[in-house]
Amino acid sequence: MFQNRLLASVKTIQKFYSQRNKSDVGFIGVGNMGQRMATNLIKKGRRVKVYDVSKAAMESVTGALPCESPQEAAADVDFVITMLPDGDVVKQVLTAENGVLKGISKRALLVDSSTINPLTARELHKTAEDAGIKFLDAPVAGGTAGASAGTLTFMVGGNQDAVKAAQAILLQMGGNVMHCGGPGAGQISKLCNNMIVAVSMIGVAEAMNLGAKMGLDVNTLVQVVNTSTGRCWISEKYNPVPGVMKNVPSANDYNGGFRSQLMAKDLALASSIAISCGAPILLGSAAHEIYRTMAAYGYGNKDYSSIYKFLQGQH
Amino acid sequence: MFQNRLLASVKTIQKFYSQRNKSDVGFIGVGNMGQRMATNLIKKGRRVKVYDVSKAAMESVTGALPCESPQEAAADVDFVITMLPDGDVVKQVLTAENGVLKGISKRALLVDSSTINPLTARELHKTAEDAGIKFLDAPVAGGTAGASAGTLTFMVGGNQDAVKAAQAILLQMGGNVMHCGGPGAGQISKLCNNMIVAVSMIGVAEAMNLGAKMGLDVNTLVQVVNTSTGRCWISEKYNPVPGVMKNVPSANDYNGGFRSQLMAKDLALASSIAISCGAPILLGSAAHEIYRTMAAYGYGNKDYSSIYKFLQGQH
Amino acid sequence: MFQNRLLASVKTIQKFYSQRNKSDVGFIGVGNMGQRMATNLIKKGRRVKVYDVSKAAMESVTGALPCESPQEAAADVDFVITMLPDGDVVKQVLTAENGVLKGISKRALLVDSSTINPLTARELHKTAEDAGIKFLDAPVAGGTAGASAGTLTFMVGGNQDAVKAAQAILLQMGGNVMHCGGPGAGQISKLCNNMIVAVSMIGVAEAMNLGAKMGLDVNTLVQVVNTSTGRCWISEKYNPVPGVMKNVPSANDYNGGFRSQLMAKDLALASSIAISCGAPILLGSAAHEIYRTMAAYGYGNKDYSSIYKFLQGQH
Amino acid sequence: MFQNRLLASVKTIQKFYSQRNKSDVGFIGVGNMGQRMATNLIKKGRRVKVYDVSKAAMESVTGALPCESPQEAAADVDFVITMLPDGDVVKQVLTAENGVLKGISKRALLVDSSTINPLTARELHKTAEDAGIKFLDAPVAGGTAGASAGTLTFMVGGNQDAVKAAQAILLQMGGNVMHCGGPGAGQISKLCNNMIVAVSMIGVAEAMNLGAKMGLDVNTLVQVVNTSTGRCWISEKYNPVPGVMKNVPSANDYNGGFRSQLMAKDLALASSIAISCGAPILLGSAAHEIYRTMAAYGYGNKDYSSIYKFLQGQH
Repeated sequence: MFQNRLLASVKTIQKFYSQRNKSDVGFIGVGNMGQRMATNLIKKGRRVKVYDVSKAAMESVTGALPCESPQEAAADVDFVITMLPDGDVVKQVLTAENGVLKGISKRALLVDSSTINPLTARELHKTAEDAGIKFLDAPVAGGTAGASAGTLTFMVGGNQDAVKAAQAILLQMGGNVMHCGGPGAGQISKLCNNMIVAVSMIGVAEAMNLGAKMGLDVNTLVQVVNTSTGRCWISEKYNPVPGVMKNVPSANDYNGGFRSQLMAKDLALASSIAISCGAPILLGSAAHEIYRTMAAYGYGNKDYSSIYKFLQGQH
Repeated sequence: MFQNRLLASVKTIQKFYSQRNKSDVGFIGVGNMGQRMATNLIKKGRRVKVYDVSKAAMESVTGALPCESPQEAAADVDFVITMLPDGDVVKQVLTAENGVLKGISKRALLVDSSTINPLTARELHKTAEDAGIKFLDAPVAGGTAGASAGTLTFMVGGNQDAVKAAQAILLQMGGNVMHCGGPGAGQISKLCNNMIVAVSMIGVAEAMNLGAKMGLDVNTLVQVVNTSTGRCWISEKYNPVPGVMKNVPSANDYNGGFRSQLMAKDLALASSIAISCGAPILLGSAAHEIYRTMAAYGYGNKDYSSIYKFLQGQH
Repeated sequence: MFQNRLLASVKTIQKFYSQRNKSDVGFIGVGNMGQRMATNLIKKGRRVKVYDVSKAAMESVTGALPCESPQEAAADVDFVITMLPDGDVVKQVLTAENGVLKGISKRALLVDSSTINPLTARELHKTAEDAGIKFLDAPVAGGTAGASAGTLTFMVGGNQDAVKAAQAILLQMGGNVMHCGGPGAGQISKLCNNMIVAVSMIGVAEAMNLGAKMGLDVNTLVQVVNTSTGRCWISEKYNPVPGVMKNVPSANDYNGGFRSQLMAKDLALASSIAISCGAPILLGSAAHEIYRTMAAYGYGNKDYSSIYKFLQGQH
Repeated sequence: MFQNRLLASVKTIQKFYSQRNKSDVGFIGVGNMGQRMATNLIKKGRRVKVYDVSKAAMESVTGALPCESPQEAAADVDFVITMLPDGDVVKQVLTAENGVLKGISKRALLVDSSTINPLTARELHKTAEDAGIKFLDAPVAGGTAGASAGTLTFMVGGNQDAVKAAQAILLQMGGNVMHCGGPGAGQISKLCNNMIVAVSMIGVAEAMNLGAKMGLDVNTLVQVVNTSTGRCWISEKYNPVPGVMKNVPSANDYNGGFRSQLMAKDLALASSIAISCGAPILLGSAAHEIYRTMAAYGYGNKDYSSIYKFLQGQH
């Protein structure tokens, strides 16, 4: 078993080096999401170099060439894709001594698919531009399931030409590429969309819990809402009431899906830009606190639809 | 003009009396909604008696026979329909000295289409049942536009047989009859649905305003949301951003549609049942206060999508 | 033991009847609060007749004469005091077939010390006035501890002369009589005061929990706040942090004091009048939902300062 | 006039240089607050060097020696005090090429009186400590009025010995020095205190507006609250209702005092640390959004008590 794997690795490396000139993607950050995305690129025939602080993570991308640094991963490729936990890490990975900008060639396109503060994204656009590199912010929607299935939606901010140039490779990892506007627009759009989802989820959960406590049959209530003005993606596709739908986190004790604490993190980013531009987000902010309160009750690592359970309390 | 109208009235009355035995609907409360609903029944061939505290309102239903009291309107018909401003009025109209229960025959079906407190609706079910009368709570969605077009949705609570018996006549005023459950279930379902809508509207408006202030093109943002998880009836069919859609209140300076203060009233009812059953409605309640605050800024008589404008402030 | 009690009762009744002409208070509603208040009146030398739906409650007021009805309790006295759970009960007790208004003499003053909807209180003022009876709304602050100690604060609404006439007897049950204005003003003032307290409590608890989680010594933080602009009755006299003060509910696992669900009830009343007059209560309403959510986590019967514990969550 | 001022300046400079060895304070940041604080130090006999990016600001501190850089202002003094707009500026001023840490002597004590993110304050403690410099975070309460009168309250975080060493000089600018705990404790305490004030203000304003709209005399209501459990610094000393008190912003069309947008800024900092430590701040966060919404209605530069006016709306 181990021998086979070792042999496979050696072959991969040999093959990789033999094709070095044709190598075309440097993928930095291969955690839960990045590992799946990079794997899809390889399946679609791309030659992929990877970098991650975790060696185990790098090794999890079968067929990729592990690198010693972001600089090395970014060298001699047509595309560099970053998928990292937050804006500070992205900034660091780009601008460090052995960072992406030290290695990347002028012909390459740099795509950051992390979800980060749009204001940081705008800084990075500027930094890349100053270094003569085309940059896109391109956060994704769809979660690990979408990353595995290659059905992610990319919300992209940046130059029209750069978006065109990225289209083909993004569609090898996703099902939809939306050009949202100039620098930062991908991040802003994602946060706006997620704020709606975050608020809707709580609204739906409160209504379903209210109906149930008033004695309604919840399945009937869901049908009524879904043929009425209350219908939304949450009520139709991601219902928080256990037993109403299959293959959603509420059917699986709220495991899988999108963790409450990640939703809270996105809402913190939304709050940050809302403060910067003076836009009130009365419900967005209330939703943020509710997801944070849920975390205090042990729902931080559960899907955000566990708000339904939170509302039921404990006695 | 006046003579023609008078002549028409006289003919109506003659025709009505000649068919008195075949008269089949008593309609009580012919305001903005009721007038349109009763008119549709007449168009579909029903003989309709009407009662309203306003004579002008009664006269506005061409072809109906005006009555002196709820009792008279309820006499000798197969269906009595009430469409009144609140639960206290409905209670009064049913139980007064010259009220519906004094006039209605045992064969008739009593349908209350007012939006009232579900707890009052349950009382009325009991009251009617004690009097040997079949009763349904059947509030509507769709507003005056739906009432005119005959496309209302009826959310109905009560006995299965009674719902079946009402189906045909309700479909002469609407496009959809949903049986939501037992006594009060129509009212509860409507409030649950409207609470979701009320919350979603604010969530969408906050996100759109945030995106716009961050420099996004709002039309693009709407498209992004509508192909993402944030999509909902509000974002797709009733967008609060002026210029995004035609034939919605936001295209008409927030006139028409569903007034903020009526949404606030529905949320007050939702709050009332939420207190009665111990269901927290953190965002529902916050939404309630936001619509109430909007009223203090002159948006009470505007459509509830005017939250978008409220969020923009005044300087 | 039983014989002694029986003997005492018999003597009380004999004494009472011998002084019947001088009997001066009818006390209706002798639950947790009323029992203590009536007992204080007896200690101060008043002859007191009592009525309650519970015989056990009536018997708990040693020295009082139990009556068969509100009418009987209200007959031949100078003062009738009601201390009942809500406005509907007060209305019923006053206007029923065998109610207070059937028994009370024109010379008597009727004082309602229940906490009820101010709009109901205003109706009752009108009802009493129409019957030729002087009426005051006079809800209390101070809880069962204040009721026992005779240190209650009465917030009184009504006619100046009536307030003067009530002053002496109210001061036999309390330490402070505040004339807040005309009919209903006592109730409104109490709700306004309690809304401030409800909001302050949560603000203080959030700040203390935040400080503690950030590593501050909570006792030091309390001192800092109490010498700064954050100081308030809550921080100084009723601190929600266990160990900071003695003789407060937080020192006793949040037992005693004022139950969260009663605070929620007062906030529901505040919400009700706020809706009636169009005053936004954004934080008042949010506080209401927080106390209601606490109830879902088992804090309904704990003092409202248990919000501090609620915020700490459960893991 | 100008000649006199020039002459005075020349004399000051001569005097200053003659005493250079005895010079003891470097004051960096002499805006609205700093100018008043530095002036008080001079009045109390301190020799003060100042630095500010604005020359005009430096010149406004009569009797101080203007410097070319933070480094110069920090050289050869016993105390360096910084009073700057935010944490990034403080960091910059301390660590820049010509920053404080380049000039300050090991014997000196560095006191930052700016209100900044406590997490940044903790970093700065570390930075200073690493450079062998004693550091205190010491934000103030009391506003420009307190700064002029020398009655500020200092909330101090850091080492006990350093606090003792700073006591005398701080009391030359303020009336109260509170040692709140270790590094960052001053900032955390200030934010906790201000969050309570922010929430209380809205609670009081909502209650007063509610009472007024229900027909109460507001002066009477204030008295009732101030002798009841609702009493707090806001209700007693800083009432938001115009006409109730003199010498508060509400008596002066909400001018002076503490601007809503600064309160919003403090609440953003509170939110930031609350997120870092997982403490829910449901009302603190709602208050934050309310002050931000007020800013959209033109109250950003008014005192935060203008919430009372905001609640009254516009028609």
